[in-house]
Amino acid sequence: MSDYRILSGQWVLPMVPRGAALADHAVVIRDGRIVEVLPLTLAVDRHPGAEHQSFPRHALLPGFVNAHTHAAMTLLRGVGGDLPLMDWLQHHVWPAEARLLSPEFVRDGSLLAVAEMLRGGTTCFSDMYLFPEETAKVVDTSGIRAVLGLTVIDFPTPWAQTPDAYFEKGERLAGHWQGHERITFTVAPHAPYTVGDDSLRRIVQRAEAMNVPVHMHVHETAHEVDTSMREHGCRPFDRLANLGLLEHAFAAVHMTQIDEAEHERLPQTLVSVVHCPESNLKLASGFCPVARLQKNGVNVALGTDGVASNNDLDMLGEMRTAALLAKGVAGDATAVSAAQALEMATLNGARALGIGDRVGSLEPGKQADIIALDLGHLEFQPAHDPHAQIVYAATREAVTDVFVAGRPLLRNRELLTLDLEEVTTMARAWRERAQAI
Amino acid sequence: MSDYRILSGQWVLPMVPRGAALADHAVVIRDGRIVEVLPLTLAVDRHPGAEHQSFPRHALLPGFVNAHTHAAMTLLRGVGGDLPLMDWLQHHVWPAEARLLSPEFVRDGSLLAVAEMLRGGTTCFSDMYLFPEETAKVVDTSGIRAVLGLTVIDFPTPWAQTPDAYFEKGERLAGHWQGHERITFTVAPHAPYTVGDDSLRRIVQRAEAMNVPVHMHVHETAHEVDTSMREHGCRPFDRLANLGLLEHAFAAVHMTQIDEAEHERLPQTLVSVVHCPESNLKLASGFCPVARLQKNGVNVALGTDGVASNNDLDMLGEMRTAALLAKGVAGDATAVSAAQALEMATLNGARALGIGDRVGSLEPGKQADIIALDLGHLEFQPAHDPHAQIVYAATREAVTDVFVAGRPLLRNRELLTLDLEEVTTMARAWRERAQAI
Repeated sequence: MSDYRILSGQWVLPMVPRGAALADHAVVIRDGRIVEVLPLTLAVDRHPGAEHQSFPRHALLPGFVNAHTHAAMTLLRGVGGDLPLMDWLQHHVWPAEARLLSPEFVRDGSLLAVAEMLRGGTTCFSDMYLFPEETAKVVDTSGIRAVLGLTVIDFPTPWAQTPDAYFEKGERLAGHWQGHERITFTVAPHAPYTVGDDSLRRIVQRAEAMNVPVHMHVHETAHEVDTSMREHGCRPFDRLANLGLLEHAFAAVHMTQIDEAEHERLPQTLVSVVHCPESNLKLASGFCPVARLQKNGVNVALGTDGVASNNDLDMLGEMRTAALLAKGVAGDATAVSAAQALEMATLNGARALGIGDRVGSLEPGKQADIIALDLGHLEFQPAHDPHAQIVYAATREAVTDVFVAGRPLLRNRELLTLDLEEVTTMARAWRERAQAI
Repeated sequence: MSDYRILSGQWVLPMVPRGAALADHAVVIRDGRIVEVLPLTLAVDRHPGAEHQSFPRHALLPGFVNAHTHAAMTLLRGVGGDLPLMDWLQHHVWPAEARLLSPEFVRDGSLLAVAEMLRGGTTCFSDMYLFPEETAKVVDTSGIRAVLGLTVIDFPTPWAQTPDAYFEKGERLAGHWQGHERITFTVAPHAPYTVGDDSLRRIVQRAEAMNVPVHMHVHETAHEVDTSMREHGCRPFDRLANLGLLEHAFAAVHMTQIDEAEHERLPQTLVSVVHCPESNLKLASGFCPVARLQKNGVNVALGTDGVASNNDLDMLGEMRTAALLAKGVAGDATAVSAAQALEMATLNGARALGIGDRVGSLEPGKQADIIALDLGHLEFQPAHDPHAQIVYAATREAVTDVFVAGRPLLRNRELLTLDLEEVTTMARAWRERAQAI
């Protein structure tokens, strides 16, 4: 296939301008980038040399940006369900990880995750986990885009035993993949309760030196805030501010606990909030006040979190949950419209991860990360509004085609760079090993 | 195909006993009913004359019971989204209905709804709408099961102009279909704010005479409760109790507003609560306290509500939302486990609708309303727990086969009694008519 193409759809949803639904439009791509978005008839006139690929019943939109996950944990799908955060972590997830964690686990889990994400229209994910060098290799060969967290935790894991080791391994990883067109990084301290002040100061320096965002679990539960009050005499948010972390791009994951002072302060920082509604609900962690944050101008992105607390990597499902839950929490049915939910799942995610200039919308010059959703199925009829159909009625199976940097990775639901049967069989084989805990 | 069959699955989830997941089991059916549930090897020995249909990667479970919907409104999918209840009703839904409502609208909308429900594993739905004689015909010919509401509203609609007319038309409908093996009824006063005391007294008599439950929207919003306090001097629940409605089987839909006295009283009534989480969220109506109701022993069923406020009839999605939301609302990650969510979507629904003795679980003597879900796809691996995989990770596309009273209605995702293309094209044609409002 040539790399100069006209992709046309019944609808094009470019995300910019906000809420636009362009009927019978096309996206012209060349050399992995978007040339322009325009009516199909015009596109054919202006680009006679381009190959035309028609998606007649489809909406074309930017691929989804999963702004927070732990890809390898996909192998723990459904382990220890219906349990609260600390019980789930301490008695199920951490013991499972202690037993299973290895380069092989991370490679296989990342493969499974990437296959699932591509089949669900996700073209970019922000990861936070151990052995990220394994995840990087899967990203490289599969063709997906990723923002890999350089994880730091102040306790030993099979990947690294000391803070120094975490920083060194992260530095080596970033050096190895520097300049890769689809791999960028965040500096990723795990959480306020697992990373001390010394490490956090080094995090600031690292983020400044690399010019990348910090990516961290923050204010996931009330318990976390209470613990910080006892141990540090202040809320985690204040502690991070005092250490200088909020003066740089910062992707704060969860943020279910926000007091009045924080609501006032957040819009003046460079903090993006990464909302993970299904994980927050499943672990009963609390409700992120999304509508209020958006009203205040805070950038809110969307993530699935790891599969162990979700139990999938389905951004369409996550959008629906986000749009519905925001209305319930705000007591306002106009909160987080379908168009806003799509923006959270695309452009806002890219912005939170420091790649908003290259990814997240269908605009000239941006990377051609594009997905096609078939809205012709019975379950979408009659189709009154493509934004609403996608957010409130679509399942991941509506995603038929996925392009990353112009390269087709899913065609008519068939994975092109991964072997579906092989990955499925591999994942199934982990069942016994994971259950033997 | 013979009507004496062994259906075997990787898992059988019978709902009774509660939470059971039986590996390599089979369901034996004959003449539309379940004979027994037992290990496959035993089944083959004991039923040599039965045809064996194997579902090797599947879970077999009772078909979903959608305990509250307005099937015909599927034609209004996505009309007036992201708006609050009264604005949505008064400025979008009611004007649309006033213009469009006709026997043809109800026939076509019911056809679309039934096709969507069967493709999503729903084998029985509880409907409340106008022109129910049209819905009844679709139920009869399609092979699905339904509990049709005999709707009463104290204002004129295209179907009926006076309370007398509603009662008469309902009586005629019930008489016409009396004894139909897949059609039963509820008496269905629309809501406390649209039905006066005189009609409600007649409702009680009708429900007693027919020995069927009452099915009614109750305590959907705080506004409804406030209005009742002003107009009747009491909450709707008390008013219904005073009129004698709560001494009979009563399916109370929504119930987002429950005070302490009502929490104490509910377990002593014959009230089932029909929870419609996605509709409640989308219209910002409030949160039904599901975990507390269940703890108190109240039967809680699950419904999608009409598509106009959802925007689909997807019981798998509704279960996931119910299980997740209940944890968030209760602040308890153990609230509404995956197994409980499945029970809500099957047996509890059947009980709420007065057919719990015949439908809702895989038990000897019950109707063979059975569905098969393919859990072999990549998105379910590794499969640690079938209940969790279905509730937290499955989309409706996992449903491959559907039987109602032993009759196959969906085979390998193909509708057997409805023409998919024809229904899709018909539904698409309503787009212009519905939008012209």
